[in-house]
Amino acid sequence: MLILTRPEIEALLDYPVAALAIENAYRAVSQGRVNLPPVGHITFPEHDADCHIKYGHISGDPVFAIKVATGFPGNAAKGLPTGNGLVLVLSADTGEALALLHDEMMLTDIRTGLGGAIATRLLARKDGKHIAVIGGGVQARRQIEAHAALMGDGLSFHLWARSREQAEHIARDLAQTARITVSDNLEQVCRMADVIVTTTGATAPLVLNDWIKPGTHITAIGADAPGKQELETALVARADALFADLSAQCLDHGELSTAAKAGMIQPTHVTDLGDALLDPDKGRPNDAAITIADLTGLAAQDIAMARIILEAHERA
Amino acid sequence: MLILTRPEIEALLDYPVAALAIENAYRAVSQGRVNLPPVGHITFPEHDADCHIKYGHISGDPVFAIKVATGFPGNAAKGLPTGNGLVLVLSADTGEALALLHDEMMLTDIRTGLGGAIATRLLARKDGKHIAVIGGGVQARRQIEAHAALMGDGLSFHLWARSREQAEHIARDLAQTARITVSDNLEQVCRMADVIVTTTGATAPLVLNDWIKPGTHITAIGADAPGKQELETALVARADALFADLSAQCLDHGELSTAAKAGMIQPTHVTDLGDALLDPDKGRPNDAAITIADLTGLAAQDIAMARIILEAHERA
Repeated sequence: MLILTRPEIEALLDYPVAALAIENAYRAVSQGRVNLPPVGHITFPEHDADCHIKYGHISGDPVFAIKVATGFPGNAAKGLPTGNGLVLVLSADTGEALALLHDEMMLTDIRTGLGGAIATRLLARKDGKHIAVIGGGVQARRQIEAHAALMGDGLSFHLWARSREQAEHIARDLAQTARITVSDNLEQVCRMADVIVTTTGATAPLVLNDWIKPGTHITAIGADAPGKQELETALVARADALFADLSAQCLDHGELSTAAKAGMIQPTHVTDLGDALLDPDKGRPNDAAITIADLTGLAAQDIAMARIILEAHERA
Repeated sequence: MLILTRPEIEALLDYPVAALAIENAYRAVSQGRVNLPPVGHITFPEHDADCHIKYGHISGDPVFAIKVATGFPGNAAKGLPTGNGLVLVLSADTGEALALLHDEMMLTDIRTGLGGAIATRLLARKDGKHIAVIGGGVQARRQIEAHAALMGDGLSFHLWARSREQAEHIARDLAQTARITVSDNLEQVCRMADVIVTTTGATAPLVLNDWIKPGTHITAIGADAPGKQELETALVARADALFADLSAQCLDHGELSTAAKAGMIQPTHVTDLGDALLDPDKGRPNDAAITIADLTGLAAQDIAMARIILEAHERA
């Protein structure tokens, strides 16, 4: 059984290959080719902590994957990461355990970044070069990396975070990867952006409807659980086209959920990203449209990441 | 992260320590101290195969465990084991992955053997020395090992299997562990036994009511899924006391299920093994009673095994 640590996995990772695998995973979900049983869940009430087990199989794949992710908020006080995890990869032909990818959540972070960049590349205007990134955490970093990897050299990133220090830290770390300007003015950054990528854990809207000009595309990453919201509800309602990695999931507990629960948008208004990838007519309607893609994360992405890491190891 | 292979795990295993941990796991289940979420399950219809994910936490334990077990019947034709598996052990305080026990199902086989021996030791007459073991597979072997380890030297095992060759193979392999006689006559073996341990995958009763004398104890291991049955239904109905590792589970799909569905036994007639371990008055009612213990396997046993292996490694 192969055991790979986080640095070993990082060395095997190829962004364009991973992006293709994740696009295909979104398509497979839309085609009904992914077997995704309900997520397993166990709680540790004394630590306000939990563990999720996501697993599934993309029909025809030689492997399947089981991802274990833990969230222990109390770790912060101990100087430990609050999130942790690993991915088991098993043969879909014999059931044998093939590999343990002890990635400590890195693959989840990267596939989330790639999901965002795939949505932006598909749905933003082709002439959109100014990308506002909102947030100062791991996902701000991963979104910049993924957008730079998938959308080429001409991009300008404008980074705003509640903590300017964290934003400057990211800008320094990624100086070789992307052109990044740190800003103190969230409104200004949103008003001038062609694309906005939101990556915060905000529980009240940060990005207001008034600030957004026609033609803007927004990729909303941060709201992945009930109670989280980054975009003003009126902005979600105003958007000309809404997209989701999985509409049922996003309408239930993603960025789209507040507008949906208020009756301001209808489930039929939301297009799954896989459908938009399969059919170009289902993407951006026109240059003036405001488009929003809400991503909450799919186990199909995890399976795709695990498979490409294993394949890269076999080739290496 | 610690990785242990099957031989390494085997070297760390101490039967009496494991038996104590498993007894305590049964007790913890009865005391409501075990958090056991629903079993995860994914199927591979093209191979008639599946994968189960069992996980949980015994309150107060420093670790929790996730067991992955696969069943791919087609492996037999490829010369591979049809069952496979591993156990992940994580910290219940920080969520960190501590160990991967790549036991290839060995821990499951051993904890099942120990569960049987714990039930027999608790419920059989103290003067019962003749143990009939029915079956020629892995569990026949594991039950003999566990009964010999837990119940001392005075036992005589009488082994019957559909294939005499397999029975003789087991008797040879375990010649240093136990006194084993191979028999061709199932009826005779059952009629003379003080204890009967059934370990087959039979789908029609093998052990008939007529053959069983008062005072006999039966530990029924084989029937762990709908459609399996080793004991004549009339024998289950006639038993003076019925026990189960988890009565709801055994009444649903264990040896007790046929009699329960026929209305021949009532759920209130079945005592959980943990309750019988906690309260001596809930065990064998008298020397003449026929007692049956039906074991279908609990994730609490898997958690207990994982913990003691990790503890043994820390001490080593």
